[in-house]
Amino acid sequence: MSAIEELVAEFAKLPGIGRKTAQRLTYFLLKQPREESARLARAVTALGERVRACTNCGDLTEDDPCAICADPRRDAGLICVVEEASDVAAIERAGEYRGRYHVLGGRLSPLDGIGPDRLNIPALLDRLANGSGVREVIVATNPSVEGEATAHYVERTLRARLPDVVVSRLARGLPVGGELEYADGETIAQALSARRRFPGP
Amino acid sequence: MSAIEELVAEFAKLPGIGRKTAQRLTYFLLKQPREESARLARAVTALGERVRACTNCGDLTEDDPCAICADPRRDAGLICVVEEASDVAAIERAGEYRGRYHVLGGRLSPLDGIGPDRLNIPALLDRLANGSGVREVIVATNPSVEGEATAHYVERTLRARLPDVVVSRLARGLPVGGELEYADGETIAQALSARRRFPGP
Repeated sequence: MSAIEELVAEFAKLPGIGRKTAQRLTYFLLKQPREESARLARAVTALGERVRACTNCGDLTEDDPCAICADPRRDAGLICVVEEASDVAAIERAGEYRGRYHVLGGRLSPLDGIGPDRLNIPALLDRLANGSGVREVIVATNPSVEGEATAHYVERTLRARLPDVVVSRLARGLPVGGELEYADGETIAQALSARRRFPGP
Repeated sequence: MSAIEELVAEFAKLPGIGRKTAQRLTYFLLKQPREESARLARAVTALGERVRACTNCGDLTEDDPCAICADPRRDAGLICVVEEASDVAAIERAGEYRGRYHVLGGRLSPLDGIGPDRLNIPALLDRLANGSGVREVIVATNPSVEGEATAHYVERTLRARLPDVVVSRLARGLPVGGELEYADGETIAQALSARRRFPGP
């Protein structure tokens, strides 16, 4: 296989990148100064070599423990449970959350053979063991069928073992900037049932 | 900058890949076995190191001359002139063409400061010099304003120097599988003026 065909094949393995896009990316790189493709190659290599999972929370990091677990200003009494490291990045970008995280590394998906044993739940229970000082666990799995199933499993497991820890989840409702006209019925139903009063005058 | 942020930044330089897609690709790679990102890095490196322009036709190749120029079964009397190496790949995929190519390396674009001196035209004239045996040059630049201007420039240059060589261009018309309803007026006009009779009974 030629170098061009090889890179097209590698690009086409990436999600959302079909053969045509993979070709476009490859020919784009060929038009750039060689230093550009060298930078991309180095960045991909560094990713594989330098990034690992934090042994405490499971987030992807170059240092272990990760910067969030090691930061004494982050509230150690609050743990936000997410499916993937990319969810940590999304919540961090929002800039509102000051607690810590726990990355499950996936979601329950019986059809794909992913049961509770494949999720990073024992480490979560260890982190919540007696004397941990954790007051609340926010379950922030995705608002999908599988994410909901995962959230309920985590909630039941925590309640059974740690009745004193508050378990909460992210609010459901209309996305900011969205339009009612395009919202699905289930979102509208949840936004209605979780409606909030305007603050009094 | 962390390894994750660096790769996101590199991916986001690629055409059609915004920041969110770059993040998705990066986290996808992080979920794969490390061998996968190593393969991608090697493919990108090999592209920069092994691929060069054919000194004869300008197509991108790992061998010089390229496989098409070196293939005695390809008709040396027929040269298809294209803007970019990716156009050679597109025509080769169609599987119909048995002649050779000449890659201009761009198209005339006065607004971007790209004049005839930036295109690989002297090498084309060398290939067509007396005794070359070339019967026909098919100008296959893109059907865009700049591609058309480039086609006319190439055609005028060739006619002035080589009056015996036939200069042709790709047919214009409705794309196969397209719908009349969605075709633009100019395409319909060209399809009408270039209409062909049904073969007789």
